[in-house]
Amino acid sequence: MYVDIGNALDAEPRLTRPALDRLDERVADAHGRIERGRTDAEHGYAALNLPDTADPDAVREAVSRFDDPAAVLTVGIGGSALGAATLAEALGAGLDHHVLDNVDPAAVRALLDTLPLADTVVHVVSRSGTTAETLANFLVVREAMDRAGVDWTERTLVTTGAEGNLRDLADRHDLPALDVPAGVPGRFSALSTVALPVAAIAGADLEALLAGARAEADRLAGSLFESPAYAYGAACYALERRGAGINCVMPYAESLECFAEWFAQLWAESLGKDAVGQTPARALGATDQHSQLQLYRAGPRDKLVTLVRPRERPDVPIPETELDGLAYLGGGSLGDLLDAEFRATEASLAAANCPNVRIEVDRLDERGVGELVYGLEAACVLYGELAGVETFTQPAVEWGKRAARGLLGGGDVDEADAVGEKRRLVID
Amino acid sequence: MYVDIGNALDAEPRLTRPALDRLDERVADAHGRIERGRTDAEHGYAALNLPDTADPDAVREAVSRFDDPAAVLTVGIGGSALGAATLAEALGAGLDHHVLDNVDPAAVRALLDTLPLADTVVHVVSRSGTTAETLANFLVVREAMDRAGVDWTERTLVTTGAEGNLRDLADRHDLPALDVPAGVPGRFSALSTVALPVAAIAGADLEALLAGARAEADRLAGSLFESPAYAYGAACYALERRGAGINCVMPYAESLECFAEWFAQLWAESLGKDAVGQTPARALGATDQHSQLQLYRAGPRDKLVTLVRPRERPDVPIPETELDGLAYLGGGSLGDLLDAEFRATEASLAAANCPNVRIEVDRLDERGVGELVYGLEAACVLYGELAGVETFTQPAVEWGKRAARGLLGGGDVDEADAVGEKRRLVID
Repeated sequence: MYVDIGNALDAEPRLTRPALDRLDERVADAHGRIERGRTDAEHGYAALNLPDTADPDAVREAVSRFDDPAAVLTVGIGGSALGAATLAEALGAGLDHHVLDNVDPAAVRALLDTLPLADTVVHVVSRSGTTAETLANFLVVREAMDRAGVDWTERTLVTTGAEGNLRDLADRHDLPALDVPAGVPGRFSALSTVALPVAAIAGADLEALLAGARAEADRLAGSLFESPAYAYGAACYALERRGAGINCVMPYAESLECFAEWFAQLWAESLGKDAVGQTPARALGATDQHSQLQLYRAGPRDKLVTLVRPRERPDVPIPETELDGLAYLGGGSLGDLLDAEFRATEASLAAANCPNVRIEVDRLDERGVGELVYGLEAACVLYGELAGVETFTQPAVEWGKRAARGLLGGGDVDEADAVGEKRRLVID
Repeated sequence: MYVDIGNALDAEPRLTRPALDRLDERVADAHGRIERGRTDAEHGYAALNLPDTADPDAVREAVSRFDDPAAVLTVGIGGSALGAATLAEALGAGLDHHVLDNVDPAAVRALLDTLPLADTVVHVVSRSGTTAETLANFLVVREAMDRAGVDWTERTLVTTGAEGNLRDLADRHDLPALDVPAGVPGRFSALSTVALPVAAIAGADLEALLAGARAEADRLAGSLFESPAYAYGAACYALERRGAGINCVMPYAESLECFAEWFAQLWAESLGKDAVGQTPARALGATDQHSQLQLYRAGPRDKLVTLVRPRERPDVPIPETELDGLAYLGGGSLGDLLDAEFRATEASLAAANCPNVRIEVDRLDERGVGELVYGLEAACVLYGELAGVETFTQPAVEWGKRAARGLLGGGDVDEADAVGEKRRLVID
């Protein structure tokens, strides 16, 4: 992974090179803390050991019973879905992968009506084994398979913890079950049994993916100027402190659209606490030049834009044309056009004093994706250390979970009572 | 459309009822300005007349030659794509709709390799008729059809202005061509020839869609307390002024995922100028409760959360289960669960003092979608008036367009020279 923070300096908000140099002393301390956490496999820090602790053989063994399925359905939500979606989109060209990560009845029904259930692998993922949305969806999927005459116990793979409803289900029906990795929060679990199964079914080279991650792990160091991941994390932290409360993540690759969503969870849940934390805004280049760029260049000075791309990619020529006005396009390629748009947008942000960072990998293959996933996880962990937040927890979501459970009749819950006290001012 | 701003008051940032009452005097003035613009069909304001000026018969006539195609491909970018994507997703259940709104070679190639080209309708949309990405993509699509032995002139529909490369192409090959509506910027064109064709092919009731829009138009009034659209626009403006620089738009419906993207363009390009403008952040309920909610509740107090949902929707029962821990779900429905999640999340935001607004329609049918699209357009126009920005222009994107053109050999361009002067600080 290559990180270029040149355009993050001396823009608005203003981050100077001397300020970065001073921050680097704190990076050294934070790196020491992270290394101790990794050595002791502490909760959260253990995620940064996955390049070595993940077991590709066990993953391949678990999926080996499913011989070249027509489709794969991941049933999970949040960190139990976004890693799989990211790997499948980036590395699973040709794989018909779907995700049930919402409980919208119309969408669930529409998906089940079109999936070839008899030839679909269902991967149910819930760390706790009790996630309401995931379990409810799985009950609906299971019934659809029953109705279609498909033996769901032959088509289902589970990833979960040692206890919980999902573990009980796996035990009762003798389903193949993978363990969630110890000490790894869901949003840091893309390189584990949570997301690797779909990559394995897609035929991705899991060793190359983990090797890409390991390459970034090997470059974690006591200075942000020696580690691409830390350079990014430190620049984000320093810019947020100076007023860049928004981080617009804009990959120039359609196959990284889910990656931007994965990043948005990583950033929001890890860093959004104690009244700090950058808000991730997802974008896609070149498309969002025609949607968000006006705001980035001319709106409030509260943003960092993160541009992500591969240095090489397959290309498609643009045919010659009979139209004079388009002659400058003909003979070129879509890749040339996308490259020109990327560089033009980056320069246009710089010209407008909008700080931006360029993140590149050589190619969007297994190695490149491994570098990106691990690199941004490590960037996030460093940012959390610098900000002094509890990177690996998400306590603020519990209120709503309790309230929803109460509303559904799951006991007497104070939070559910509060729902009824909503203040209304309706204009209709 | 129902807009409930009760939870937008007295949260953090703090907007009080007296402040809203004072703002309402300015709403009356702004409404007068908007009405004059509509009467004179001024640039931009003309968009708010589309419920009356759009011609569904002409649209149906233009698509009538395409008899029940297997797929529809919209080739456009920004405002020339997002409206079609929004209508197709919300109203086109069963329609195989695709959008080429990027020039990623791998994605373009993958799409063309799987589309049934002989039975696909291609709708090419460019207001100027010169958009580089759109024309380049169309040249590639056209060649793919040629190679597949498909007469592309029989499968192509065009929407463009009176002049430009795309108009020349339509004239030269006698393609069916619809005119872009006069005075309507792309991001305000969802209810016009830009996006209605795909809705017509999907079999949507265009009159009901426009009737929904007209219902919101009829409720524009000189007070925010009498118009749902203005209530929303005024609340957003007032909250931004007080520090809510981010507007997180979170529909609780999978079929509104593209709608959130459409909204993001509407908001960003219209309001992001002169160093003001809320940054839209797209989310999706209930999914992003497991991704973004931690940040919304516990992060910086710089956000408004906009929750959108239908009051009624088709439902799917959750089967009874043998697992004790899930007994509280069985016998309920996915709709019940989603409803509980919606209300729990809304209350959890209020409990955390995060301002939020609830926008509802009766159903996500043509009428409801028409209300939403028009209502949010009118909200945006009001916000622009209150903020004193040029709502209908996007001057900041021109720099990058010129630079890209220069990089591609389209003449000697100062901006292209600036691209070469990039400041680098690469960590690798």
